[in-house]
Order: sequence, then C-alpha cells, then structure tokens
Amino acid sequence: MTPQSTTAVRYVYDFEEGDRNKKDLLGGKGANLSEMTNLGLPVPPGFTITTEACRIYMETGGFPEGLMDEVATHVAELEKKMGKKLGDAGNPLLVSVRSGAKFSMPGMMDTVLNLGMNDESLRGLTTQSGNERFAYDAYRRFIQMFGKIVMDVPGEEFEHEIERLKEETGVTEDTDLGADDLKELVVRFKEVVRLKTGKGFPDTPMEQLKLAIEAVFQSWSGERAKIYRRQNRISDSLGTGVNVQTIVFGNLGEDSGTGVAFTRDAGSGAKSYLAEYLPNAQGEDVVSGARTPLHLDALKESDRASYDKLTGIMAQLEDHYRDMCDIEFTVEKGKLWMLQTRIGKRTAGAAVKIAVDLVSEGKISQEEAVLRVDPASLDQLLHPQFDTSADITIVAKGLNASPGAAVGKAVFDARTAERMAESGEKVILVRPMTEPEDVGGMYAAQGILTSRGGKTSHAAVVARGAGKPCVCGAGSLKIDIEKREFTVGEYRVVEGDIVAINGNTGEIALGEVPLVEPELSADLLKILGWADGIRRLKVRANADTPEDAAKGREFGAEGIGLARTEHMFLGDRLPVVRRMILANTPDEEQAALDELLELQREDFIGIFSAMSGLPVTIRLLDPPLHEFLPSSKELELQIQGLEIYRSVATSASKHFHWENTDVPLDSPTTAQSVEKEIAEHKGLLENVTRLEESNPMLGMRGVRLGIVKPGLYAMQVRAIIEAAVQVKAAGKEPVIEIMIPLVAVREEFDMMRREALAIIEEVFASSGQKIDFLIGTMIELPRAALTAGDIAETAEFFSFGTNDLTQTAFGFSRDDIEGKFLPRYLERGILKVNPFESIDQAGVGRLIEIASKEGRATRPGLKLGICGEHGGDPSSVEFCHNTGLDYVSCSPFRVPVARLAAAQAVLNESDTAGSDTR
Amino acid sequence: MTPQSTTAVRYVYDFEEGDRNKKDLLGGKGANLSEMTNLGLPVPPGFTITTEACRIYMETGGFPEGLMDEVATHVAELEKKMGKKLGDAGNPLLVSVRSGAKFSMPGMMDTVLNLGMNDESLRGLTTQSGNERFAYDAYRRFIQMFGKIVMDVPGEEFEHEIERLKEETGVTEDTDLGADDLKELVVRFKEVVRLKTGKGFPDTPMEQLKLAIEAVFQSWSGERAKIYRRQNRISDSLGTGVNVQTIVFGNLGEDSGTGVAFTRDAGSGAKSYLAEYLPNAQGEDVVSGARTPLHLDALKESDRASYDKLTGIMAQLEDHYRDMCDIEFTVEKGKLWMLQTRIGKRTAGAAVKIAVDLVSEGKISQEEAVLRVDPASLDQLLHPQFDTSADITIVAKGLNASPGAAVGKAVFDARTAERMAESGEKVILVRPMTEPEDVGGMYAAQGILTSRGGKTSHAAVVARGAGKPCVCGAGSLKIDIEKREFTVGEYRVVEGDIVAINGNTGEIALGEVPLVEPELSADLLKILGWADGIRRLKVRANADTPEDAAKGREFGAEGIGLARTEHMFLGDRLPVVRRMILANTPDEEQAALDELLELQREDFIGIFSAMSGLPVTIRLLDPPLHEFLPSSKELELQIQGLEIYRSVATSASKHFHWENTDVPLDSPTTAQSVEKEIAEHKGLLENVTRLEESNPMLGMRGVRLGIVKPGLYAMQVRAIIEAAVQVKAAGKEPVIEIMIPLVAVREEFDMMRREALAIIEEVFASSGQKIDFLIGTMIELPRAALTAGDIAETAEFFSFGTNDLTQTAFGFSRDDIEGKFLPRYLERGILKVNPFESIDQAGVGRLIEIASKEGRATRPGLKLGICGEHGGDPSSVEFCHNTGLDYVSCSPFRVPVARLAAAQAVLNESDTAGSDTR
Repeated sequence: MTPQSTTAVRYVYDFEEGDRNKKDLLGGKGANLSEMTNLGLPVPPGFTITTEACRIYMETGGFPEGLMDEVATHVAELEKKMGKKLGDAGNPLLVSVRSGAKFSMPGMMDTVLNLGMNDESLRGLTTQSGNERFAYDAYRRFIQMFGKIVMDVPGEEFEHEIERLKEETGVTEDTDLGADDLKELVVRFKEVVRLKTGKGFPDTPMEQLKLAIEAVFQSWSGERAKIYRRQNRISDSLGTGVNVQTIVFGNLGEDSGTGVAFTRDAGSGAKSYLAEYLPNAQGEDVVSGARTPLHLDALKESDRASYDKLTGIMAQLEDHYRDMCDIEFTVEKGKLWMLQTRIGKRTAGAAVKIAVDLVSEGKISQEEAVLRVDPASLDQLLHPQFDTSADITIVAKGLNASPGAAVGKAVFDARTAERMAESGEKVILVRPMTEPEDVGGMYAAQGILTSRGGKTSHAAVVARGAGKPCVCGAGSLKIDIEKREFTVGEYRVVEGDIVAINGNTGEIALGEVPLVEPELSADLLKILGWADGIRRLKVRANADTPEDAAKGREFGAEGIGLARTEHMFLGDRLPVVRRMILANTPDEEQAALDELLELQREDFIGIFSAMSGLPVTIRLLDPPLHEFLPSSKELELQIQGLEIYRSVATSASKHFHWENTDVPLDSPTTAQSVEKEIAEHKGLLENVTRLEESNPMLGMRGVRLGIVKPGLYAMQVRAIIEAAVQVKAAGKEPVIEIMIPLVAVREEFDMMRREALAIIEEVFASSGQKIDFLIGTMIELPRAALTAGDIAETAEFFSFGTNDLTQTAFGFSRDDIEGKFLPRYLERGILKVNPFESIDQAGVGRLIEIASKEGRATRPGLKLGICGEHGGDPSSVEFCHNTGLDYVSCSPFRVPVARLAAAQAVLNESDTAGSDTR
Repeated sequence: MTPQSTTAVRYVYDFEEGDRNKKDLLGGKGANLSEMTNLGLPVPPGFTITTEACRIYMETGGFPEGLMDEVATHVAELEKKMGKKLGDAGNPLLVSVRSGAKFSMPGMMDTVLNLGMNDESLRGLTTQSGNERFAYDAYRRFIQMFGKIVMDVPGEEFEHEIERLKEETGVTEDTDLGADDLKELVVRFKEVVRLKTGKGFPDTPMEQLKLAIEAVFQSWSGERAKIYRRQNRISDSLGTGVNVQTIVFGNLGEDSGTGVAFTRDAGSGAKSYLAEYLPNAQGEDVVSGARTPLHLDALKESDRASYDKLTGIMAQLEDHYRDMCDIEFTVEKGKLWMLQTRIGKRTAGAAVKIAVDLVSEGKISQEEAVLRVDPASLDQLLHPQFDTSADITIVAKGLNASPGAAVGKAVFDARTAERMAESGEKVILVRPMTEPEDVGGMYAAQGILTSRGGKTSHAAVVARGAGKPCVCGAGSLKIDIEKREFTVGEYRVVEGDIVAINGNTGEIALGEVPLVEPELSADLLKILGWADGIRRLKVRANADTPEDAAKGREFGAEGIGLARTEHMFLGDRLPVVRRMILANTPDEEQAALDELLELQREDFIGIFSAMSGLPVTIRLLDPPLHEFLPSSKELELQIQGLEIYRSVATSASKHFHWENTDVPLDSPTTAQSVEKEIAEHKGLLENVTRLEESNPMLGMRGVRLGIVKPGLYAMQVRAIIEAAVQVKAAGKEPVIEIMIPLVAVREEFDMMRREALAIIEEVFASSGQKIDFLIGTMIELPRAALTAGDIAETAEFFSFGTNDLTQTAFGFSRDDIEGKFLPRYLERGILKVNPFESIDQAGVGRLIEIASKEGRATRPGLKLGICGEHGGDPSSVEFCHNTGLDYVSCSPFRVPVARLAAAQAVLNESDTAGSDTR
C-alpha cells in the first residue's frame, strides 16, 4: 500500500498502517488517528513519523538516515491520494504538523498548521476557497505560528504588528482587518522574521516540513515538557511522534465549524455529552479562548446531518474504545472530519461513576472498572472539600499542590501562624513562597497559599508531606508582606480576614466557606468492593486513638498496622512522664510507671474494643526521652534571666521595674523563691543535658530505650495484655501484635521479647485468661533488613518502617531535608520522586526485598507488612504486592487508595485485562 | 589401647590417644599433655574429657549419656597403669581435675587438686609419704579447694578456721601448724561444709570426681570466664575440656619442688630462660604468691640431673613446637615431671623479636614469622611509651584499656579538664568511672584514669574511640571527688599534681615521666618487609596535613586514602569561611571563596609534594556549614543578656554595677553600641537558625552542600588542580583522586562530576598542563552501596566510608551512643564488638560486598578502598582482603598494623602455613 523506503527500519507510517495498540511507536495521537481511519471514519489523510525517529534525534542531534526521503515518498502518496500538491498554485495541499507522544501532554509540545503556504499556494487557496481574505488569513497565521514555533521569533513581535496595523487602519477587532490588510501583514510578518532571525522565511514546502518536524522533536526536550513529564512521572526517553495531516478548514463560512466533545460529562461522569462547537472557526480559535464556543446543539440546529453523523461516531467510538472518549472535529462546508480522539481525562468522581456505569451497561468487566480509576486521584474524594451547595466566591486559581480544602484567617508570616495556632485559631499561611524557616508555621496552619512556585516548590513538597492542603503559584495574588495583605482583582485581604483554599482544584475563595467531610459515594463503594474481591494485599490503618481506629475501619481497614504509643505520653500525661524520666530513686520511677500503666491500659482498651476481631499492631515507645522535656536552650535562657534578676534585685531593686523587660520569668517575688527556682532549673538542665543528643534520630530511642530504661517496655507490655484480658472478658475479641521498634541487632529484640514473654505469662497466670499474641519487630534500619534472616528466628512478624528506612538508607533526615534541599533535588531532577512519598525501589525497596526473602526463608509464612505513608501511595502499594507482603498500613483516609491500588497490582501482574488509561 | 565405651561417640581420651592438633576436641592443655606424652616426656598419666561433653552439658544441663561410665573405665585403666587405686588405704591414687579450653584462659576456670582424698586414702598417703603432717595437709587443702570450688562454700570461711586455729595454738604461720592441728582442721573444714551446704563432704572418690567435672563444666559459663572471652573475642560455644591427671607432689621435701619456665624471655624476646623454681612446694604455692620463687639456677645447684633433663626438654619442646614454650614442671623426690606446656604468651616486642630470631635460626619461614605477631598488639609499639631508661615510680596498676602513655595534671571532673585544656594545660582526667556527660572532658584530656570498670566500661570504649590512652579499673586508687584528690598506698595526689599512665600496661606513675615517641625497631621493619612481600592489599594513610602525610609515608603508607578538607577550614581561616557562609551578595560570597582558593591551593601543594608519586584521595567538604558558626543557643543567650542590659541600663544605670553579673557581654559601653551589637547578633542568629539541623548527620552535608552551595566544590576542585599543576611544574609527581562524599543518588555524583570536569578542563587549558586524575565517590550510605552498579557508570573509584556506613546501617549516631548505650550493649553481649572499631560483617560488610561486586560488574577493575579507623583493625583488614578491595586507609600510626594484617589475610586464605598462635 505504501512504498517501502530503502532503509531497513521504517520511520514513517500512513494512517492506514497503524492502530491504537501502536502508541509506543506512533504516539497516542497517531495511533488513534490510524484507528479511526481503519474504522472507516472520515479522517483527513496523513502519516505519522515514529517516536523512534525522535529518539534517534535526541541521541544524535540529527534526523535518522533516510528520514526525509521517506517523508518525501509519503508526501507524494498523500498528494496523489488528495489530488493536491504542496505549494501548488492550482490545487495546493496544506498540512498540519503535530506532536503526539505515547502519553498525552496537552499543550506541552508544538503544533504548526497550514504548512505548505507560500506565494504560490496562496493563489491556489484563493481559487479553491474563492475567498482572498481567507487565503491571506491562512497565510499570515502560518507565518506567525511557524515563525514563533520553528524559528524562535518571540510571539509578541507578531502581536505587535497586528496591533500596529489595527491602529493604522483604525479597526479594533482582528476580524475587521480586510484582505489587503492581511496581505500587508504577510509582508510585515516576513520582515519580522528576517529582522529577528537574519534569515528569510522558507518558501519551499519540503523545507518548511523538515524544519517543522525538527521543531516538534526539539519541543520534546523543552523545559515545559520536561517539567510536565517529571510531575506526571513520564520517562524522558520515550520521545514523541509527529503527525503530518491534510488540513481541513472550519473557517470557510457558516457551513463550516469546529468543536471538541467528550462522550460523557468529564466532570460528573454523567451520561451526557460535554461538547462545544464554534461555527466558522479553526481549532486554535477554540483553544485560544478568543471566541466563546456554543453548545453542540448549535450544530444540531444548523446542520442536522453532520450532527447526527457526529453523535453516531461518538457512540461508535465509545463502543469501540469501551470508555469515554475526547474528540476533536471540524465541519468543512458541510462535511464532517474527525481530527483526533483519545480516552478522555476526567475528575476522580467522574472516573468512578463512568467505570461503574460502563459495567452496568455491560461494556467492561469489573476488573476493567477497577483499573479505570487512578488510586492517587481518590485523594480528591477523601479530604474535606468546599461545600458546593454554598455560595462561594472564587477569587483566583493557583496550582492544586496538596489535596483537601481549608479555611482560616490569612496570616503572612510563619511565626504569627504559630502564635495564633497556639492560641487555638485556624490560620492559612499566605506567602509569596515558603522557605525552610517557615516549616513550623506551615505545620501550625490549616493550609498554605503561595503566589509563586510550582508543584515541586518548597511549599508543595512540605504541604504534601504534612498532609496540609496547599494551593501554590497563584500568580494573580499580589502579596504585600510589609503591609500584611494581598490583593486579587478587586478584592483586598488583610491579616485576619478569612480565606479558603481548595487544594484539589487550586481554587481560592474568600469568607467562611463551609467544608464537607468526605463520604464514600455508592459508586466508589462498589468499585472498592470489586477491588476487595481482587486484591491479595490486606490493608490496615495507622491509628493511635479509638476514634482514628473507628475511622479506619469505616474506610475498610482490616486492622491497625501501627498504633504509636508516644502520643499517649503527651497532653495531661506529660507531668507523669516527666516524673518517670527524672525520678531520683527506683521507687519514684516505679510510682510514675504505675500511674502510666493505668492510663495506657485505658488507651488500649479503647483501641482493642474498636477493632474487635481485627489485628492491632502496637509499637512500644519509640522517641527519645528528651522529647518529653524542655530544651536545654530554653532552660539556659531562663536560668540566665533568673540569675540576672537576682543580681539586679539585690543591687538595684528599689530603682528598677523588672516587669518592663522581656525576661522570661515566672515572676518570682522573693529572693528565696528565686534561689529555689534557679536550683530547680539547674537540676532539670543537668538531666536534659545528659539526655539531649546531637542526632536524636540515630540516638537513644526505640528498643535502645527499652533496654536502657528497664521497666518502661515492661509497663507497656503489661498495659497491653491487661487491656486485652479485660476486653476479652467483656466479650470482644482482641487480636494483638506487639511491635518492638528500631531493632538493629537480633539480640536487642531477643532481650525485649524475653522480658515481654515473662510479663505476659505473669498476667495470664494471675488473670487465668489466655489470649493469642504475636511479638515482632519493625524493620526500619538497613542492618535489620540485611540480617532479617537472623532476626526472623525469633520475630513473628516484620513491619517495614519505610520512613526510617528511607532516612537511614539515604542518610536523609526528613525534618531537615524536606524543607531544604529536597525541593531543589526534585526540581533539578536529581530525584524523580520524593522518596518519603513513594518507595525508592532501587535502594529502600531492595532492602525490603532482601528482608522479605530471607525472613521467610527462616520462618516460612512470616507475616510481612509496611506502615508509614508509603502504605497509601499507589506505586508503593504495587511494589509491596509484587514483593509478597501480607499487608500495607496507612493513615485512615488513605485506606481506600490502598485498597484500589492493591487490586490494580493484581490485575497489572496478571496482565489479562488491558487498560487504555495510564 | 583404651577400651571403647559402648556409646558411638567417645567423650574420654587417654593422653596417649591425643595430639596437639586436637585442641578443638581436647582443649589446649589436654592436647599438649597428649603431645608431650607421645614425645616420651615424663608426664603424669591421665585422661581428658572432651569439649564436646561440655557443650552437651551446656545445652542439656546434664552429662552426656554414658560419660561417667567412660570415665570409670579410664580411671580403672589409670589405676592399673599406676598400680594405685582411688581412695585406697594402702596405695591411694590422687588426681588433679583441671579445665582446659581450646584457647588459654588463665585463671578463668576451676581446678581441683588432690582429688581422691578421704579418711581411707589419708592413711595410704601417710604410709606412702612417711609424713603424717604432709598427708593431713594434702587432705585439708583438698577439702578447702573442693569445698570452695565445687560446693560453693565462701573461701573466707576456711581462711577463718585457719586463723582461729592459729590463734588457739598460738602460732603465726600456716607452716607452724603440726599434724595434729591439721587433723583438727580437717574436722573443722568438714563441719564448715556441712553447715554452709547442708550436706556432708563427699567421701567417695568417684562422687568427688563427678562433682569436680561438673564444676569445671559450670565454670565455663561463669561470669569471669564470659567476660574474659568477650574481651578476647572467644566464642561462648566452644566449651572446655577436663583433664584428670595423676598428682605428683613437689612438696615432699627438699628433693622436691615445682616451677614454671618460658623457653625465651617473654618480655624482651631475648634467647634466655625466664624461669622460676620453688623447692618443697606445690604449684599453687607459686601461683598464690605466698612464697617468693627462686631462679631456676636454684634447681641447677640442688639437683643438676633434673636441671639438665628439664633444660633438655625445654630445648626439645621449642624445636618441636617451633616456638617459645611456657611450661610447668614438678620434681618429686628427684624425679622430674612435666605438668603442662603451651605456646607462651609474650609482649608485642618479644613476639616480633622471637619471630625474627626463629627465622634466623632456620626454625620457621618468613611467612610463619609474619603469622606469629598479632597485628593488634603492634598498637603497643606505635604509641608514645614511658621512657624505661628513666626513673619511674609505678604506684599502681589498672587495666590496660586503651594504648599509649600520657602525662598531665590530675583533674577530677570533666569541666575542669576542658577548662584547663583550653588554656593549654595537659591534664589526665581521674574519675571513679566516667559517664556520658564527661565525654567533653575526656576528649580534652591527654588520658583517662578510672578506679572502676573493665575494658568495656564507658571510659574504655570512649577512650579507644578517641585514641586516648586509658587505664581503668585501678581499684587500689581511693578517689575522693569532693576533696579533689586520690590516695594510693602511701601516696596522696591532689588536683594539679602530675600523674602518668601507660595504657599498654595499665601502669600508673607519679611525676613528669618522660615519654618516648614510637620507633619501628629493626626487627619490626624486617617483619613488615616480609609482610609487604606477601600482602595484596595496599595500605594508605588518612592525613590532612603535609606533616601527617610524611608520617604516614614513614610508616609505609602507599598513598593517602583520605585527605579531609574540613580541617583546612578552621583556625585562622574561620573568619573567611564565615564570610563565605553569611555572604549577602554573590560578590561577597565570591570574594570569600577566592580567598579560600588561595589558602586551599597552598594546603594541597604541601600534601602533593609530600606524597609525590603516590596517590592522594581528597574528599571535598563534608560537614554541615553550621558547624562553622556559633550555636543558636549561644547567640540567644547573648542577645537576652544584651537586651536585659539595655533595659537595666536605661532604667537603673546609676544604681547598678553591671560588671558584677555573669552576663556574657562583650562590654558594650554606649547605648548605641548595644543596639548595634544586638542587631548583629540577631542577624547572625537568623542565619544560624536557617542552617541548624535537628540531625546534622543526616542533613545538609557532603555532596548536598556541593549542589546547594554552588561555587564551593568548584573552588575546591580548582584549588586541587591548580596545586597539582604547580607541583608538577616543580618536578614532582602529583597523583590525584578527587572524592565526592555522601552520595546517595547517582545523579548527585554526576552533577558534581560534570562541574568538576569543566573546571579541570579550564585549568588545563589556561595552564597548558595536563595531569591524570580520577573522580570517584565515597560509598558511605546504604543506598549508595545498594545502587553501586549504577554509580560505577561514572565513578572511577569507590572508597567505603565505614564510619558513616556503620552509623546509617545501624541507625547509630556515634557521637550519641558511644558514650551512652554502646558500653552497656557490649557488657550485656548484645554486641560482640564495637562496630565502630571492627567492621560489622553481617550488615555493613554485606553492603560493602554488594557494592564491590556490583560496582565491578559495571566497571571491571574499579578501584576500591576503605577509609576510617576500620582500615587499621586487623579483622576488618582481613575482611577487606577477602572482599577483594584494593587498599585500606587508616591513621598513620595504624599503617604497620594494617600492613601486617593484610599479609596475614593472604596467609590465612591460602592456609598453607599453619600457626599455633591465636
């Protein structure tokens, strides 16, 4: 059908030769144009240059050998097919040159329309169309687009000429320029090109084509495209295809037009067209927003035949692709042409509804439906959202950098945010951009709003890590830090005014926008139900309180994978904890431990009751003890203040008003009380100094604490088991897994396990009850992973603590780097993803694989899980599935994400159900 | 020859059946008794119970089946051989029961002599010896020893009875007690046993034997023995043999006696007997120190025949064992008996001399000589030592916990130590024991002396880590912290008095003991020369200055494996470094960098010149920048002080003498200068706050710094290359390896490498010179090790940074744990060795193996080395050899240790030359 080029490898395919499965080779657009061509749909003929050609161009900086010969052959074929010729003065062929990569990257790469225009074909086009103005307009558009995209002339140079011409001719609208004006514009545009590039505008169509193809290849490596790929985790090495296609004109009069349509509503998922039509227009008029498009009904009224044909094709495409499609079409003098189709992008909610509907319609299987929803997108549905039933004033839009919605008083610096948050106020931190020293304020705020920076900016990375809603890069906000206000359009917001942000959409609103808590829709429950039937990985929640546990259970958690006990040591318990740490005698220590025992037992009773019948993994105390004490800095400042006070008070008391100074005094009133206070502070300081560490992350915490502070883990184990005995006595079913953290050496685990077993036996003996339990460990240090075969001799389960494992494998302190160099690393591509969000498979993942394999070699059936936010990251979940883990555990609102991702992991593994989404 | 027991496995071997190669089975003592028996030497007959029996006893808590039957059979054989019977009233057989493990553990386990004594055999012994007093003495000694060791009666109970009897009879010396007194003592001793144990003293010899064997087995697991094994890295699972041997008596009159001898001088290595003899005495009299032994010449004079026979045997044994031997012997009524031989322990100096002499004498090969010296023991020869030619008053001895000698003023608390050291004084920190908060003072001191704690105590561990001499557990020191003094014997030392300690020997001396710098003796040079001919691993030194480099070279280093650049940023350069860090404009920053460039270039010129022809690996800046600034705590205290001053000065200045307070002011005198100072401090604080980190170990350091602070690494690379160009121009030969630290992700390395290459090209171009260089990385993070195959694509060498690799693999911050829980971990056996001293092979070692293998798979011949103190630890050196590394690098004074260890690694690998030392 098509003449073979003489080279062994082909780089060019006619649309007739491809199909939708050839996306790797032809790119998405080319493959789908081929598919439609072969379905017999009215597609303007053309051909595709392969992604392989682009890859060679990227590597060598030049076209593959013979490429332009092949292109020439295909152009000749096309000319023959169309009965037109490029650059012909009689019947000229015009083509579009469009990029098209495997994955859609809308707007990221370049397009040239009307290629083939020159002074010759201008005459032909005038004759063909019978419309000189149209022909000159096509010509000037071509020079403008080609000049800007292929020849790197700044776009505003052309805009400028148009404006000047309009002034000269006294018109205000482009459309008021006549044929002669446009003719003049062609001359001026060519002059602009010559001035700016030092070269004449290329007249030969084949030269135009060659340059345009090269420009598309280059646009693949453009900054915009690179950033997009990084954000969407698309490999830089794929390359783009180039589609050369006969131009059809939607702007040849009222019997022409152009439009785009989704076969269903991409916002809600409802079964109704979401479509727009613009009569007498070319595609770029729709895209540029220069004219407001009409509903598709306009076509129905003006050209019923084309409308019927179009809706027929839309139904045909949806049946064929078995999914919602997104199409572009043009009507040229009453004839319908299909310019593009692809699987349509949609919101998370629409994805869920469409998938469920397609199953009801018998078009896809449940497995396919499960694959149709991007688990990460569920985040949008699982955070608080603006209550759309309320009257909301959206004043601007930025980038949707971290999901969820938040409302609070605008504040303009981190310290104010912290101070106000401490006094119980809800605040939104508003900054041009954030910096490392703002992190405290970011954590204190409900949400973060910035006017600069993208999705890998400091603000975005920290917010996602902290689970805070964030809108960034809202460029229309003019923030004045000095005045502590921002303006946007007509609005002015001063510190303390209420603002609201929606991190799912990037929307910014003013006033007390009501938020709604997320609920799982019936459709989502259906999809998750199907997912549950497919997945092999269990999903648990991380929860430290009965409330969180219940929430996790509601979202489908099959247990608690991580119940941290340190949160139980804070609040009103802090004084008791401090007494325990600072005890001077074993008796004092024991008294404090006894008090804690009572409290902890109650904690566990609540959690076990909420999770009756499901396993609960309790991690014994992990953080270093000095975290429960004031810092030495604080104490030294107080001591210095007190000592100066003492000095001053004795020598100058009568003449000096101490109250006017900033010294942080608890207002001692007598010399005696000052002395006492100084002594107490010094005593405390001595303890703090002994406990403080230069690198607490790598210091006295976890099992080390259990070994060095006898009685602590013993108390916790006793509280757990006594609670379980009581809960069981109350008719519920506690399922206990005791987890010893931060083990590096097997003997650490063994020692604590022996201690725990002795206590458990004692509680069983005294209560006359017995309950099943497991004692296991976190694998969160590289050495533990590397010696897991040994540790599994005695450990009954492993839970991978991927946060600490990432910190130690990389040597990254999350506290220190997440706000500092991590954003820069992501921007510069040193890291492709934040390893604290998605498991680093090459390093951390390898440790998990080693530990899993060798742990199970020692103890077949060893229970394996992971806890930490990675448990709710889809690609990490897939990794866990492939590595053979038993469960993942994540924060309650991530449980649905993990359920879906776990099912997809099974389906992707078996590869039986194909999916056209990515 | 010996009747086989009916069980398949044998647990008992006559001396005739063993040989010296059966140490695993028979223990060292048993194997050597067998060896001597088979050499035809006069060994009192007996048999050995195997270590296997002991191992079964440890596991099961009971004797292996049939053991006592086997023992009975061998006893019967022995009785037949000797013509005597256990417990016989006519001709009684008495035996000793002695432990004997594979490795000598002197004094750590139990011995029972004269077993078989009871009222019957007493009569026989009386008849045999014709000496009633002797017989009763033997009886009471047996009861005393058996009671204490086997029946757990406190030894002082028996001593007490002896004292009472002496009072009653009015004598002062034990030897003045007559036969009747000793007869009474036997009665009283038996009564003591009955009272203390509730059981009668066992009369039946076979029961005595069974209990004695069990006691020896148990003594293997005694606390004393366990600690000894831990310190000497002997496995707990080996078990001990038990030797049952006919007793001979050295205390049967003046024609009897007992002695010990080394065939050469174990102290100096000289070829002369080191031997002691005690007439009319049993072995325990020598050991207990109750009587002062004579020189062997005493025997020569009194019994020439026995003397000649003994010296002949000594020569024979040395020829046979081809090493210096340590023997015990007894002369019973003119007949010489050999009771034990083994390879003699010796000082490091003696080991070197003996090995070299034995090669000269043609007795051993050079390879064997190399194996005869323990590399770790060379430490003793490579640190400063007491000048033995001086008049030194040794006042006490403690444990030799960390090698080297030190002299300084005694101080009794860490803060004083720090304060005095800061003002340039040399101090020795003296404490009952040290604690974590003393670490600062320990680092400030020349050496550490404690009266409590063993070789794994806090003091010992920290001192070894810091390379400080340490003597600990010197129990005879009475330290009074309140009075700030210690007394020892007649001496009293108050704070400020000069003391000296020798960490090689544990000696403590008073006054300005002169120290001598170590020199490599001719013998040691010879051994090291042989080692160099054998080893495959290269040995480099870690050195940051030309002086250290020269010292390393003098000790045989074949290059510098780690030249740290951070030390070059301190001292008088600190102000420049601070200007660089705190620069407000790029120009300010560049100006500071330019200044640093000049200085660094000079540094490198010095080092390259010193190491001409040998490779120098330079690590680009590693530590976080805030280490070069004051701490925020310090600044906040100063600011608070200044602010109060300002307050007070304005409201009470006339009535208040500010100078009397402790506020850390730089004495501002005017209100204006206070304001300025506060503003400056606040500005600095802001910078410090931005830079400070919660876990600096895991923060912004190493390559991260290079990436985030552009210009810094560029300056260093330029300084290196410009220096190399200059050094080459001066006719020397710089060999450069540029090392980028703390790489976790290959792209980090690539980015810095590209930057470096650009600068290098520029310097080459402008200088017209070219020099070979390598650019490589440290592998010091687990992720780097796990992705080494990838990193080796561009890295030209790897240097394993085992310090950081150990910190991150274990999650141990060395700063925090070494003084805190690490000593406890070592004491409790959670860790067998300090992983910062000796590579943890299971975890850290595995990472090194993975990285080596996969790095070389990518880049065959990839140069691999390690830097850090592990490079000077013999077992780590052996590991590096076995893993195929190219070199180890360690501090200069450890270079000889590494050279020797590297040679031994080759010899141990080939296993051709046997060695009898451990």
